[in-house]
Amino acid sequence: MRLYMGLVHYPVYNKNHERIASAVTTFDLHDLSRLAKTYGVKRFYVITPLEDQQELADRVVRHWTEGYGASYNPNRKEALELVSVLTSIDDCVREVTQQEGKKPALFTTDASQKRARVLSYREASDMVLTDKVILLLFGTAWGLSEEVFDRSGYFLAPITTHTDYNHLSVRSAAAIILDRLAGKYPRGQ
Amino acid sequence: MRLYMGLVHYPVYNKNHERIASAVTTFDLHDLSRLAKTYGVKRFYVITPLEDQQELADRVVRHWTEGYGASYNPNRKEALELVSVLTSIDDCVREVTQQEGKKPALFTTDASQKRARVLSYREASDMVLTDKVILLLFGTAWGLSEEVFDRSGYFLAPITTHTDYNHLSVRSAAAIILDRLAGKYPRGQ
Repeated sequence: MRLYMGLVHYPVYNKNHERIASAVTTFDLHDLSRLAKTYGVKRFYVITPLEDQQELADRVVRHWTEGYGASYNPNRKEALELVSVLTSIDDCVREVTQQEGKKPALFTTDASQKRARVLSYREASDMVLTDKVILLLFGTAWGLSEEVFDRSGYFLAPITTHTDYNHLSVRSAAAIILDRLAGKYPRGQ
Repeated sequence: MRLYMGLVHYPVYNKNHERIASAVTTFDLHDLSRLAKTYGVKRFYVITPLEDQQELADRVVRHWTEGYGASYNPNRKEALELVSVLTSIDDCVREVTQQEGKKPALFTTDASQKRARVLSYREASDMVLTDKVILLLFGTAWGLSEEVFDRSGYFLAPITTHTDYNHLSVRSAAAIILDRLAGKYPRGQ
């Protein structure tokens, strides 16, 4: 797999649909780095232009990879070693391109279901498992801003269930999507 | 569906395999109640014998169902209304039994893969979707204590991936398992 993952803190929307830079949530770093490690994601980018938020993320990562946490919990060390803190989606695309020698396909998810053409999870999973270079972007706060969708090549289908409620945290949504894209179980079992 | 979910804070293991009562994590209440609501779970039980932890959980729930949070974020209100704080697994089984007129089947998950006979996700999903009364128990800290497994009728298969790392947070694991049991997508798509 040549799958990369980015957690976008800018540009995203707030509750009033204004474009903002959201704050870093330390639980996201823990849950998503362990998720990334579990599913074989090559690198997990935490994307924020806010310097104090970059420092916060760096501090958490250092604590668990170099500090006391590294010896206290080696599993967490392995996971948080996947994290890179970057300023922008552009930087993130540049890094993946450098790493892989080709530009990644940008996958985004949009719970609002308004995309005309979406990728089914089977199609998307086939792309992941055949080693296409993919950068999967998740939005924080009230979701990715429209300009991110504009540059995204692929929209993943919304997560549908037997209810019409769909307000998952980004941590839950990311877990479900990674499992659908890169989980290993005989399909349907 | 007649699916119920419990987050167990006692009896669970700590890092040194000692039986403890773990602390309530407020992120668990938020993520898992939204997850439960999204997947049609009928009730989400937060199980702890510690009174201060019961009070903490109750306070979070009240803030979002009655307090300022209820008007600020009605979606979160709907989710947190699913939460009941209970003292023990026994109380939880009793409540579900009262609600449904029959005892629930207890489903547990064990990342350690040591169970001889596990339920595949297809088998488990069939039971969920055919309205069997099920109580799905998740362990916090280092996982459910052996005595919980002893009384559990069904062990779900571990979440396997294309790596041999498997250290998901309970939030991530619950999201993946709910999607596998009660997600709605043409299987394999």
